[in-house]
Amino acid sequence: MSSPGLTPTPRTTAQRLPARGRHDRATIDAILDEALVCHLGFVHEGQPFVIPTIHARAGDTVFVHGSAASRMLRALDAGVPACLSATLVDGLVMARSAFHHSMNYRSVVLLGSLKAVNDPGRKLEALRAITEHVAPGRWAQVRPPSENELRGTSVMELPIVEGSAKVRSGPPGDDPEDLALDCWAGVIPLSLRAGEPISAPDLRAGIAVPEALLRYAR
Amino acid sequence: MSSPGLTPTPRTTAQRLPARGRHDRATIDAILDEALVCHLGFVHEGQPFVIPTIHARAGDTVFVHGSAASRMLRALDAGVPACLSATLVDGLVMARSAFHHSMNYRSVVLLGSLKAVNDPGRKLEALRAITEHVAPGRWAQVRPPSENELRGTSVMELPIVEGSAKVRSGPPGDDPEDLALDCWAGVIPLSLRAGEPISAPDLRAGIAVPEALLRYAR
Repeated sequence: MSSPGLTPTPRTTAQRLPARGRHDRATIDAILDEALVCHLGFVHEGQPFVIPTIHARAGDTVFVHGSAASRMLRALDAGVPACLSATLVDGLVMARSAFHHSMNYRSVVLLGSLKAVNDPGRKLEALRAITEHVAPGRWAQVRPPSENELRGTSVMELPIVEGSAKVRSGPPGDDPEDLALDCWAGVIPLSLRAGEPISAPDLRAGIAVPEALLRYAR
Repeated sequence: MSSPGLTPTPRTTAQRLPARGRHDRATIDAILDEALVCHLGFVHEGQPFVIPTIHARAGDTVFVHGSAASRMLRALDAGVPACLSATLVDGLVMARSAFHHSMNYRSVVLLGSLKAVNDPGRKLEALRAITEHVAPGRWAQVRPPSENELRGTSVMELPIVEGSAKVRSGPPGDDPEDLALDCWAGVIPLSLRAGEPISAPDLRAGIAVPEALLRYAR
């Protein structure tokens, strides 16, 4: 069971537009689960880096993975502070004034230190979670990692302890004096959509696209 | 004119899978221009923060904006090192092995220091670029910022000097010994799609949705 919510801290409390800030785990978890990728921030020799990467939530933990040789994961292995952000863009908010233009979005920012997952069983569990995060049901259909592949993959975990979500939805919030303007206002909904699966050129004859991938949706 | 490419530096040179790394401005600019939002990384009291925000490229500069009161923009105002990442997810790469699963994506990582844009004319130009980045043609349709609104908005700029793009496309790269497996492999294409515009509840009667928003696409 997820805990009901994260305790707000000064650095995870929205200072502006506090109505958009959320700390409940249901909101945070749903955003982490829907987002295909996250952006992971860390500091290396004084320079912040922000790297897109696939993630997966499992209970109170977020896993990320990469090559054991990657600069990112080597830097994070020392337990340096990190920030993991996941963002879903839901729509363009078109107001009558340039100033009140906005986006409808749901985002999560988690703060903490990543640590390496070294136990082979837990590492496998993390890779399973990442594969299933992207395509539910896929793990059972594919060849599992060999020992060599497992050794060549770094897995890191971030506990869901400090962080918050931000959510904006609904129509534009125009100033009353702008409502009379001769200007369309509203929302353009946006969503990530899947197209028709493209079979690999070297796919053996007679293998059908799995049902779940034919109707793939986030 | 954009310069033809950025000079690779040790921190912007792909160490793994170097074939995915790009430094040409045409690739970098196209990704920055297509991405609706970026993720901006900066360090505040030793903690990295990664914040999603709207951006716009204008020539050799990327602009971001926010409330003059925002913690993010106050922290960046001192010219601290920052990292701006923009990522487009183009597809899910489904291999026969868990290990070779991947994503098709195009991403840009820019390194540098943001600085405040204070000149009112240049600030207005940046806000115009940001509005037009999201919805081309929109700036001419809406009420421009008042002096008060302009004062209440911080604009920051990052020169496109150090950075790189990464691009993965095409089918999965399975190991030869996995090709015989009874497992579908291929790509699920993904794209951000616009739905039907939703007019604001307080929209005056008789105002049509602008043509460009009816057929909105990135």
